[in-house]
Amino acid sequence: MNGGKQELGERSVAQEGGPLAIDYIFHPRSVAIVGPSPQLGLAGMGAAFVLALQDIGFEGGLYPVNPRHENVLGLKCYPSLLDIPGPVDHVIFSVPVRAVLDVVEDCVTKGVKSMHFFTAGFSETGEKEGAELERQMVQRAREAGIRVIGPNCIGLYCPAAKVSFGPGSPKTSGPVAFLSQSGGNAADLLTTASPRGIRFSKIISYGNAADLNECDFLEYLTEDPDTKIIAAYIEGVKDGRRFFRAMRKASARKPVIVLKGGRTESGSRAVFSHTASLAGSQAVFNALVRQVGAVAVDSMEEMVDMLIAFRFIESPPAGRGVGIVGGGGGFSVFAADEVDEAGLTAPALSQRAQEELRRFTPVAGSSVRNPVDTLAVMEPAKLVDTLRIVAAEETVHVILGHTGFGWGPGRVATAMGFDLTKLMEAVVDAMERAREIAKKPIALVVATPPILEPTEHSLRFQELCWRRGFAAFPSIPRAANAIAKMVAWREMREDLSR
Amino acid sequence: MNGGKQELGERSVAQEGGPLAIDYIFHPRSVAIVGPSPQLGLAGMGAAFVLALQDIGFEGGLYPVNPRHENVLGLKCYPSLLDIPGPVDHVIFSVPVRAVLDVVEDCVTKGVKSMHFFTAGFSETGEKEGAELERQMVQRAREAGIRVIGPNCIGLYCPAAKVSFGPGSPKTSGPVAFLSQSGGNAADLLTTASPRGIRFSKIISYGNAADLNECDFLEYLTEDPDTKIIAAYIEGVKDGRRFFRAMRKASARKPVIVLKGGRTESGSRAVFSHTASLAGSQAVFNALVRQVGAVAVDSMEEMVDMLIAFRFIESPPAGRGVGIVGGGGGFSVFAADEVDEAGLTAPALSQRAQEELRRFTPVAGSSVRNPVDTLAVMEPAKLVDTLRIVAAEETVHVILGHTGFGWGPGRVATAMGFDLTKLMEAVVDAMERAREIAKKPIALVVATPPILEPTEHSLRFQELCWRRGFAAFPSIPRAANAIAKMVAWREMREDLSR
Repeated sequence: MNGGKQELGERSVAQEGGPLAIDYIFHPRSVAIVGPSPQLGLAGMGAAFVLALQDIGFEGGLYPVNPRHENVLGLKCYPSLLDIPGPVDHVIFSVPVRAVLDVVEDCVTKGVKSMHFFTAGFSETGEKEGAELERQMVQRAREAGIRVIGPNCIGLYCPAAKVSFGPGSPKTSGPVAFLSQSGGNAADLLTTASPRGIRFSKIISYGNAADLNECDFLEYLTEDPDTKIIAAYIEGVKDGRRFFRAMRKASARKPVIVLKGGRTESGSRAVFSHTASLAGSQAVFNALVRQVGAVAVDSMEEMVDMLIAFRFIESPPAGRGVGIVGGGGGFSVFAADEVDEAGLTAPALSQRAQEELRRFTPVAGSSVRNPVDTLAVMEPAKLVDTLRIVAAEETVHVILGHTGFGWGPGRVATAMGFDLTKLMEAVVDAMERAREIAKKPIALVVATPPILEPTEHSLRFQELCWRRGFAAFPSIPRAANAIAKMVAWREMREDLSR
Repeated sequence: MNGGKQELGERSVAQEGGPLAIDYIFHPRSVAIVGPSPQLGLAGMGAAFVLALQDIGFEGGLYPVNPRHENVLGLKCYPSLLDIPGPVDHVIFSVPVRAVLDVVEDCVTKGVKSMHFFTAGFSETGEKEGAELERQMVQRAREAGIRVIGPNCIGLYCPAAKVSFGPGSPKTSGPVAFLSQSGGNAADLLTTASPRGIRFSKIISYGNAADLNECDFLEYLTEDPDTKIIAAYIEGVKDGRRFFRAMRKASARKPVIVLKGGRTESGSRAVFSHTASLAGSQAVFNALVRQVGAVAVDSMEEMVDMLIAFRFIESPPAGRGVGIVGGGGGFSVFAADEVDEAGLTAPALSQRAQEELRRFTPVAGSSVRNPVDTLAVMEPAKLVDTLRIVAAEETVHVILGHTGFGWGPGRVATAMGFDLTKLMEAVVDAMERAREIAKKPIALVVATPPILEPTEHSLRFQELCWRRGFAAFPSIPRAANAIAKMVAWREMREDLSR
């Protein structure tokens, strides 16, 4: 996505002034981590950042700084920032809070461009000292023209620049950006969305938002050409008017999915303890999200589901009719109930479609009404015809196929000597052929019981799906909810653009 | 749980007349499976039943019957039931529907006691022929004194009798019974509840309920001394008055958890296609469940969660105050919101408790208000004190600890060289010590991202938990919902007994 170091440096200079002016913080030429311990463990959490940058293959200078060590994870460790020979663009703080101001002075002297504070113990403690320290730190940084990420956060992930906050993160980029006031949620989204095929342009964990805040990042991501979908976890907003404008602009350009922390009394108290944010009224926040045409979600799971929908369903379904196709009578009953409860419908198929399906669907142990309860998933040639016939119905706007690898086409299939890999590939081939004919979105539900072997099968099948551009969800309610919200989003945007 | 074959035979005779009269169907001395094919595959699903009985170690006579084969899965295969030398107690039908009546005649001649029809294609097809065949089959069975399970179902699982419908099922028994009108749901519950520590007295998949129905089984399980908790998935009820009486009696004796299929218009249509049941009004059903003091759930996931609660939380919490303990600021915010949204509360801890916690909880990156955001889970000695202090609060009635093996005490811990097994054991030891002191229920949330390694860690930790009698849930909303329903159930029972 980007060239050598030289080009990156030029890019940030070229865009000074607009929202993209902060682009350089994602593309540091060199990074110092202050405070890591080679023995790792809890006391030396900073070393995890060294590990993360090594793991993703950061190509610039990488400098651990800690006067008590000579070597950290195979790298020379410097007593202080000032002992590092070359320039340092970005500094990650993992030091006790009392040492912060001294290290900031070193950053100023060294000509550092951005600072990220993993260090916590600032305004979020609720104590006067912490808040005052945060104020002083930001003031000094601003005087020196240094931008601050955090404090109290895990900072930045930008695979194109080979920057990461966690070891084992994907090295490839994608169109999704995530802006998160919680480091745990940032790591969580990366962990849970990656195996489902989501790749990121940037993930930004920004904690207390003492300098750079949700608006700076939102405005940046709106302009960022590498970002096509924006997700945000927000606990509190510093400037309501600016946030409204930023959200409106972002939502007009890209799908924006927002999760608000602190919706209830207990939650609001927790939000203040976490990032010193004032949660504000949930009703006001919801009204704002609706008004700008963004999508509000209530959990990280729902956030991932919406990302899957926007990433892999090429265009939102033209209506709320769902054709449900898969095996299992009880599961079909749930699917029908759950699709209805999500605000979609599973309309009965026309007599003609039912008759067409009956030509190759056995009467015993199946249904052709919708849900179509069929074992066609075990016989992919029949699957193409089934999907084709269901998709041709005028009342059907999206197809929801379902399968699973617990019981049914999992344990029994294995016990019965099916070649599961071949079966999986044949199913995805069939879905692809059906999609070409049907010209309607086909999404998948891959039920994954929390057991090892089925999880392995499910992950494998899921990857086959997303690599061919199919949205896959872990359950009918989650799929139906994501699709329903996507349809509502389309309608809302049509209203807004009228 | 039971002695030799002789004793079982006597047991069923002794209880003739009452609800336990059907006990013998769970303890057949010999089983014939009609219609299996040795090549397995879709056409010979019946062979899966042979495999299941072999796998669980069924000790009686096991007789495949199919004129086209001499051998199935290493067993001699008989041309017809009448060629089997000894007596046959139980017959599993896996034959084409057109062959059913002939095989029933053979069963009558052979003196069979019970028949289970995996075979489908009866009233659930919605065709006159299927309904008429079902009527004839039941009539002939009743004339001959043979009880029928199904048709259109997977039948029985009773580990004490070494009877099972699926290969790979647990061989140990437990206090939970599940009565399911869907075979898929029966297999699903076994698959998903087993790794969470639930073991079963009986699982009964009963399909169209043409002879033995939900009331027969409910009345049986009410009296069954091996069953302490009853779960039921029901699509339709044959006799509303009898069902009400059976439910009332069952709920007075044991916790009863009910999931109704066919709650919506689409779902009701699916229910009819599945088992020819009339779903009836959801409002009426809900009123019935409330009136008898049972617990209604909306999904199989919620069903498992309620089983976990009733099985592993010794007595329902005395109130709705939750003490939330675990690491992660963003996660703590969600936990607080989600606990509130489930109808529980996370009350702020007293000043005294907060001061006590602060003595050993670092100020930076933590909170002692509730949620208690702490890394004490990494330092088990501190964990005992943390749990003890929180549980001592008058406003706290149950503790919800949370941890995870994705990011945080998972990938990073491993990368940092923690011994995860030792850490897990130390955590459960600490929970046990805290429980002894606190005398309040402690439940766990073990977040499991859908990836292989964390799933493996989570399953291992979860097993440690349930083996020591701790309820473990996969997410805060699911834990909070189960606990809230358990509290509501306690209150309802107190009202009913007044």
